[in-house]
Amino acid sequence: METIQSYIEKNKQRFINELVDLLKIPSISADPAYNQDVLNTADAIKESLEKAGCDKVEICETPGYPIVYGEKIIDPNLPTVLVYGHYDVQPADPIELWTSPPFEPVIKKTDIHPEGAIFARGACDDKGQMYMHVKALEYMTQTGNLPCNVKFMIEGEEEVGSESLAWFVPRNKEKLANDVILISDTGMIANDIPSITTGLRGLSYVEVEVTGPNRDLHSGLYGGAVANPINVLNKMIASLHDENNHITIPGFYDKVEELSREERDEMAKAPFSLEAYKNALDIDDVYGEAGYTTNERNSIRPTLDVNGIWGGYIGEGAKTVIASKAYAKISMRLVPNQDWEEITELFKTHFENIAPKSVKVKVTPHHGGQGYVTPIDNIGYQAASKAYQETFGVTPIPQRSGGSIPIVALFEQELKSKTILMGFGLNSDAIHSPNEHFGVWNYLKGIETIPYFYQYFTELSK
Amino acid sequence: METIQSYIEKNKQRFINELVDLLKIPSISADPAYNQDVLNTADAIKESLEKAGCDKVEICETPGYPIVYGEKIIDPNLPTVLVYGHYDVQPADPIELWTSPPFEPVIKKTDIHPEGAIFARGACDDKGQMYMHVKALEYMTQTGNLPCNVKFMIEGEEEVGSESLAWFVPRNKEKLANDVILISDTGMIANDIPSITTGLRGLSYVEVEVTGPNRDLHSGLYGGAVANPINVLNKMIASLHDENNHITIPGFYDKVEELSREERDEMAKAPFSLEAYKNALDIDDVYGEAGYTTNERNSIRPTLDVNGIWGGYIGEGAKTVIASKAYAKISMRLVPNQDWEEITELFKTHFENIAPKSVKVKVTPHHGGQGYVTPIDNIGYQAASKAYQETFGVTPIPQRSGGSIPIVALFEQELKSKTILMGFGLNSDAIHSPNEHFGVWNYLKGIETIPYFYQYFTELSK
Repeated sequence: METIQSYIEKNKQRFINELVDLLKIPSISADPAYNQDVLNTADAIKESLEKAGCDKVEICETPGYPIVYGEKIIDPNLPTVLVYGHYDVQPADPIELWTSPPFEPVIKKTDIHPEGAIFARGACDDKGQMYMHVKALEYMTQTGNLPCNVKFMIEGEEEVGSESLAWFVPRNKEKLANDVILISDTGMIANDIPSITTGLRGLSYVEVEVTGPNRDLHSGLYGGAVANPINVLNKMIASLHDENNHITIPGFYDKVEELSREERDEMAKAPFSLEAYKNALDIDDVYGEAGYTTNERNSIRPTLDVNGIWGGYIGEGAKTVIASKAYAKISMRLVPNQDWEEITELFKTHFENIAPKSVKVKVTPHHGGQGYVTPIDNIGYQAASKAYQETFGVTPIPQRSGGSIPIVALFEQELKSKTILMGFGLNSDAIHSPNEHFGVWNYLKGIETIPYFYQYFTELSK
Repeated sequence: METIQSYIEKNKQRFINELVDLLKIPSISADPAYNQDVLNTADAIKESLEKAGCDKVEICETPGYPIVYGEKIIDPNLPTVLVYGHYDVQPADPIELWTSPPFEPVIKKTDIHPEGAIFARGACDDKGQMYMHVKALEYMTQTGNLPCNVKFMIEGEEEVGSESLAWFVPRNKEKLANDVILISDTGMIANDIPSITTGLRGLSYVEVEVTGPNRDLHSGLYGGAVANPINVLNKMIASLHDENNHITIPGFYDKVEELSREERDEMAKAPFSLEAYKNALDIDDVYGEAGYTTNERNSIRPTLDVNGIWGGYIGEGAKTVIASKAYAKISMRLVPNQDWEEITELFKTHFENIAPKSVKVKVTPHHGGQGYVTPIDNIGYQAASKAYQETFGVTPIPQRSGGSIPIVALFEQELKSKTILMGFGLNSDAIHSPNEHFGVWNYLKGIETIPYFYQYFTELSK
């Protein structure tokens, strides 16, 4: 019976070409200008699932972008794996920092990817990682190696909050019924140090608007006498962290789980070089909440970051103006037990409370989601661990991620099944940044590892 | 001999039409895209000076935009008035807030301007006020009422720092020799409360750049662990004012002149309604330095305002990113005795000092200028005061302006003469804002008042 290794050897160039074609479509869900491209990507996914051997492939309409569904049921008595991924991507800006156009994929060698990496927006997040599952399915169906049932659910709004998926899932519980959910939308520590993500942070994303005078004013005639909304917004945002970089929103930490010394010591065993970390980012020092390590700050602790700010004159040269309005996009990463809707409300109330009487403040929630944790004694986790051992030759390290896949908590709530996060990307792949890329080695390694997960999960389910 | 009143009565429609034509040219000096328009405006000014009776009109080349010069010397033994103005204008954005296109002038009635106001960028600042002098000269030359010599110097970089004028003036001291400099680029309290500006604030305008990581980062994977340049910039800017809204830059106040109780009481006599002020701006409260009134805050006190800020994702929807860089344009209004170059240096040093080790900071000075004060016992001031009495029927109030005309301090230094600021605009004319306008009544009143200044200045000079 043909092995996955020999199948990949024969087909790897085609696997790469197919992904490259998918990456050429600018499926930016955040920007309405790309509406048709997002829809075209859904069609491309549908076609690829059919070719890979899925039955009943359909484009499921939603209030927003459609969800592509497909399944291969070989025996109702066998376990069912539900694969989730997304076909939408982040905006590409700042476009000028890309060394090659974001939607014209090119393969370039890097120190970390000596065999080359595919540079394109979405290469790693998530088209590349999602497509590994399509190609793994193709192998299993074409060679008679599919040991259980499989369902695919690929959405188009992950980068903007998955609202339509949250609408779709509760309405399709039966269609989506499964024993485990499998997702590749996270990373691992290094190519020789595989890891499985066991925790995700929640997210609350808001936009704030501060209004001062009813029109832009001459900064000479009015400067010093009226509230400048930009200065005020700066003061308000600055006050959201105290001198130890703790967040000052009342009640913000009330439900944060405090890890035990033992758990923190366990985490600290994951290999990490602060020097390498600083050098990779070209920073002289890290910065964060007092009393926690870098790895703790971006995984087990909640955060508040301004993702964008604008106001006044930002064109060429100088303009002596006091703006009427200033804006910021602010997101908070949350840890398990923090409820994102509750945190959003706490933020809104606090931000409105700290506004001086001289300005008006508007807080608009964008979207959010809950955090999530997978216990490592779960058979899904164990099947994944054994799969990595087969293909990497080492036991993967369980790791908490600082990122968020808000929908995972919803899956557990609605579908009553656990999610396994088998990520094959690296932190250095620059997802959400210019020059996003995905190692060719990682892409093929993912395709190689996934079938073992199916095999072990089916065995452990008996 | 024909009076100015009858001359205006006969020609006012032409005076308005000529100004309207001038306002149609978008002479935005801050934006290179309008380069040709700025140059075309200089040509239009040259032509208008020739038609008004100036001799030796020329376009004087400079390292930047040209300066239009013209003169009418009737007798070397008579005093000489040097008229200064500028033909460049502020950028028009935010364009969407204009009720009519900024460079398609229209005349509309307002509560304050029942006889109509010309709505266009530059209507008041400074094309309209500058052109009053051209039309006043036309009257004096056409009707044989010019009592002394006159020189015109109209520049095209006032809105971006007058660098070329600062280059031109020291190189042309003889050509520019004069007994008094006359400028209309300020405002008065109200149409029934004329005032003469006796003080101007200095200006220091800088741009700051804060750099964190060498690329935009995913706010989930890095959030909380690396310095977010926007959060840091907000904290740094917030720290520039203390809880009393005093500026915290060391040495900033060292040379600020403290006015006596008497002087402040004198200022307080100028009619002012805080309620009307707040209502006009649609704000619930004013905001500023503790211990000073609104009129003091925007005239005799120095200030620090952010004129623009930007960083991260500012497009549609949401992007969970930590930006690599954040920027702000910051200007400080200075009072007499504060040296703008010294203040710029103090700002730069302080801003670099307060930056955390986790970011890099760059401070780039844009431009600046010194403050200025005219003593009211000066004969130029007295000639202006008598001119207003002729045409307004009341004695004008001496007033400190919060605005800056940096070049005025340079004139005194290089040309050894005092500047008289006869402004006919109103604070409500929205200069530097959308819907800038200039009352038709104010425009004609300026043309009517200026010849009296020439007459009284010549008499008082004997």
